Amino acid sequence: MLRRNYPSFREVVAKGELVRVAGAHDALGGVLAEQAGFNAVWSSSLEVSAARCLPDASVLTMTEYLEAAANMQKALGIPVIADCDTGYGNNLNVAHMVHEYEAAGITAVCMEDKLFPKLNSFAGGDQTLLSTEDFCSKIRVTKQAQRTEEFFVVARTEALINGMGIDVALERAYAYVDAGADAVLIHSKSKTKDEVEEFLERWDGRRPVVIVPTTYPDWHADDIAKAGVSVVIYANQGLRATVSSLRSTFESIQRHGDSTALEESIAPVKEVFGLQQLQAWQALEAV
Amino acid sequence: MLRRNYPSFREVVAKGELVRVAGAHDALGGVLAEQAGFNAVWSSSLEVSAARCLPDASVLTMTEYLEAAANMQKALGIPVIADCDTGYGNNLNVAHMVHEYEAAGITAVCMEDKLFPKLNSFAGGDQTLLSTEDFCSKIRVTKQAQRTEEFFVVARTEALINGMGIDVALERAYAYVDAGADAVLIHSKSKTKDEVEEFLERWDGRRPVVIVPTTYPDWHADDIAKAGVSVVIYANQGLRATVSSLRSTFESIQRHGDSTALEESIAPVKEVFGLQQLQAWQALEAV
Amino acid sequence: MLRRNYPSFREVVAKGELVRVAGAHDALGGVLAEQAGFNAVWSSSLEVSAARCLPDASVLTMTEYLEAAANMQKALGIPVIADCDTGYGNNLNVAHMVHEYEAAGITAVCMEDKLFPKLNSFAGGDQTLLSTEDFCSKIRVTKQAQRTEEFFVVARTEALINGMGIDVALERAYAYVDAGADAVLIHSKSKTKDEVEEFLERWDGRRPVVIVPTTYPDWHADDIAKAGVSVVIYANQGLRATVSSLRSTFESIQRHGDSTALEESIAPVKEVFGLQQLQAWQALEAV
Amino acid sequence: MLRRNYPSFREVVAKGELVRVAGAHDALGGVLAEQAGFNAVWSSSLEVSAARCLPDASVLTMTEYLEAAANMQKALGIPVIADCDTGYGNNLNVAHMVHEYEAAGITAVCMEDKLFPKLNSFAGGDQTLLSTEDFCSKIRVTKQAQRTEEFFVVARTEALINGMGIDVALERAYAYVDAGADAVLIHSKSKTKDEVEEFLERWDGRRPVVIVPTTYPDWHADDIAKAGVSVVIYANQGLRATVSSLRSTFESIQRHGDSTALEESIAPVKEVFGLQQLQAWQALEAV
Repeated sequence: MLRRNYPSFREVVAKGELVRVAGAHDALGGVLAEQAGFNAVWSSSLEVSAARCLPDASVLTMTEYLEAAANMQKALGIPVIADCDTGYGNNLNVAHMVHEYEAAGITAVCMEDKLFPKLNSFAGGDQTLLSTEDFCSKIRVTKQAQRTEEFFVVARTEALINGMGIDVALERAYAYVDAGADAVLIHSKSKTKDEVEEFLERWDGRRPVVIVPTTYPDWHADDIAKAGVSVVIYANQGLRATVSSLRSTFESIQRHGDSTALEESIAPVKEVFGLQQLQAWQALEAV
Repeated sequence: MLRRNYPSFREVVAKGELVRVAGAHDALGGVLAEQAGFNAVWSSSLEVSAARCLPDASVLTMTEYLEAAANMQKALGIPVIADCDTGYGNNLNVAHMVHEYEAAGITAVCMEDKLFPKLNSFAGGDQTLLSTEDFCSKIRVTKQAQRTEEFFVVARTEALINGMGIDVALERAYAYVDAGADAVLIHSKSKTKDEVEEFLERWDGRRPVVIVPTTYPDWHADDIAKAGVSVVIYANQGLRATVSSLRSTFESIQRHGDSTALEESIAPVKEVFGLQQLQAWQALEAV
Repeated sequence: MLRRNYPSFREVVAKGELVRVAGAHDALGGVLAEQAGFNAVWSSSLEVSAARCLPDASVLTMTEYLEAAANMQKALGIPVIADCDTGYGNNLNVAHMVHEYEAAGITAVCMEDKLFPKLNSFAGGDQTLLSTEDFCSKIRVTKQAQRTEEFFVVARTEALINGMGIDVALERAYAYVDAGADAVLIHSKSKTKDEVEEFLERWDGRRPVVIVPTTYPDWHADDIAKAGVSVVIYANQGLRATVSSLRSTFESIQRHGDSTALEESIAPVKEVFGLQQLQAWQALEAV
Repeated sequence: MLRRNYPSFREVVAKGELVRVAGAHDALGGVLAEQAGFNAVWSSSLEVSAARCLPDASVLTMTEYLEAAANMQKALGIPVIADCDTGYGNNLNVAHMVHEYEAAGITAVCMEDKLFPKLNSFAGGDQTLLSTEDFCSKIRVTKQAQRTEEFFVVARTEALINGMGIDVALERAYAYVDAGADAVLIHSKSKTKDEVEEFLERWDGRRPVVIVPTTYPDWHADDIAKAGVSVVIYANQGLRATVSSLRSTFESIQRHGDSTALEESIAPVKEVFGLQQLQAWQALEAV
């Protein structure tokens, strides 16, 4: 079947095993993540904006982020979880976001407690948070706006990114869950897993916890699972590998004056055709 | 300047040196090609469709191909040349294509003499050509539709792809130029450069010739230039490197259970921020 | 609920009463048709292209037609039936069309047996038909491509438009139904209903029949129902009323030098706010 | 020429006569305004959002507003001035807005001094303004971001809408002009022209003034010009006429059971073909 069926993100989480998610910005990345065995794809704002060479700072619009997420989902047999930043504005924008993402077949979104327009969490600069009350209001809006029980909302707190400490992070996370969030994402830019680990030790487990180990890459998935994490997102390694790979590829052609040296290491055109399911599409000519 | 100026493709060709072009499907690829020293970027139908995991068979629409090309051009200081397949239909579609691409700031398009819907030249399957007369009509339409003198139209003949031989290829190429084409692209899927070389030896030089050495990667740029080529397009090496790189990256995370092993080889987040020009954008806060 | 539920077109047809459909090109037109009591909305290629001031000749892309249809459906509590012209190319394009429309929440499409690129049926010019066999192949592709039982495909024959006569129209219509079409649309540009009426008299009723009484506007809905029609589409009256209304509105301002004369006849801003559901949206601020 | 040339908005203003602008939300409305003699078209946020049946409250994205404006401009021989609300966020969003609108061929934008997300000026609800200093910063960003001298920025103050009085309105307007704005728009929802008239009497004329007489429709263009106005925008009369016209058209079909009664008053299909320039497009077949 050229257009594939896929489980909802909720179904994937419900299986009870650690859900491994890979970041991507287009269908090609998503399909390769699926082929490698990932259980879901993170439609990453950092990746989508980087693909446009524009900052991850709410400069691209919801329309553009949604298009990226929807185009990935159409090619996949696993669910996309869409990085929706702050929900693109106030409560009205949040409701519209849910309407639009759900209508496009996306089964899970993640919304964070920063102000619109946001700035990437790893960038220097203002990372002020919305009040707990106002963010809870946004979460209630998501739940009111969704049409199916299936739709899944991850509330992401940037309390640790903002240096507010674990007490505040926990307080916010509990409030978000009580407002209706289906899971919480605890983000950290610490060089070690320590603060996230402490968060997990103190978390009462009332909802699943999601982490993004970008700055503490050495935490093994088995240990992550043991620490009580339900979902781990490898958010941008694919993008960063792509940057390195494209840089060396283009430089090689320029340096050598031809592309012979690359032929051994790059995928043959036939492999690209396979990812495009060319043969199955061509078979339609004779239906 | 965050939004950059760029020369037209015509200006780049007019310099008289071999124009080196790299294929890409998004701004990130385009910018990395520019940074490696390429003179222009080929907005490749194969790449754009592969990024969607859909076949390179006129399944994506002009809207989608144009969006990809325009998003690349917005990020670049070098011109995009857009792979426009067959012109997306008949003469009316061709006129509309020129209107739309020119309005979006694209300064060069390439149109080929296959039937709509087309199939990728390296794929098995029907590669029937439009009559010479009808394709010349399409070329005349492009010239009538363009608003600026600057706009540049490359006529691509698939005569060799279709096994019609060099005589036919030359006959068609001359007819296309006489109908107004600004350059001709002679495509071949031969394992060697021989038939393209013969084409060039017999070509009277009335307009620039463009080649795409995908299947004969060992032809050095210096020799390509000596053979009389004006523009060489490395059409899909970046895509194929991306496929290999993403595959091994995702597999590494799955196999190791963490992403530590990758950290050495993939670009740091800071390099991504650089490609997004984050610092220059953030400086706008204080204007 | 700001994002509304809607029945599928199949459900609406299954009720057994004459389904009355109004043509539209945006959500505003669709909602006003719904408020007037229509049972479905025809996302008309003529209307969508006219809104762009471009010919109804396959110049706009599937992306643009789909966007129009999807934006209508999002605002409606009744189903959209999308005018999909020829299916936008060959069998591959048809499969992709079904994937995309279904993913966007559209429950019914209509595809006609002309060649791509098509020309509006009321325009002079070539109206050549695809062979019956090839069009049946396209219909089989739609059925194979759809993911839900619910999706509904109307096969439209242009045999009468093309002057091929009622025998051919019937022959094609039966073939299309046998290939899987859920209904047939018999189109005519005759000044009277006579040829459509004869078609209906001879039709064996194996599937519902759809008509578009643009050139025979005096056929009363009750009589249309009695003649055996299941669905009647008033395809473009809204557009044509809009043209007249905008023309006289703009001329009035220019002629009078102010807009006082219009105030009596045009909707107040408050009515526009009502159509935008402003109050319900604003209530979200306090959720 | 199917794709038309158009003067910049700056050129139109420079002629020194009162510039009459009509609001529209699609190319059809724009072309009918042009045919009626208007000098420019206002790509109205109220109209564009109403066409989607969504509130005029920054719910639609810049991508969607830009698409509407660009699609209008492509069909016109007069310039579009784009209603860009608050600039879609902070300084970064404003810079990106200028890049994108300018790249799409738009020659003038209007930005207002409300907070993002904004609410329509005629709606009850919060109309808080940004500080003068912060809005001046946004204006400086527009000027820094534009690539051509031609690009024209209208600064709109909502001081009167917000009940801050004429002194504040003037103070803000002067500050905006000093920050680089090419014109100021003074908006009022008063039932009379009085407060706008007083603003104009006290304005020192350092830059052109733009008005939008929606709530004081009886002010004649000749008197508007005498009062010192350079540009008058009839912002939404076309939309409101469309609503009335569609409502009565759809109701007529439902009430009468056929569309005969409409035929006298609605434009014939041939007139639609004329607006689509069908004949000129068809002529391309024989180029």
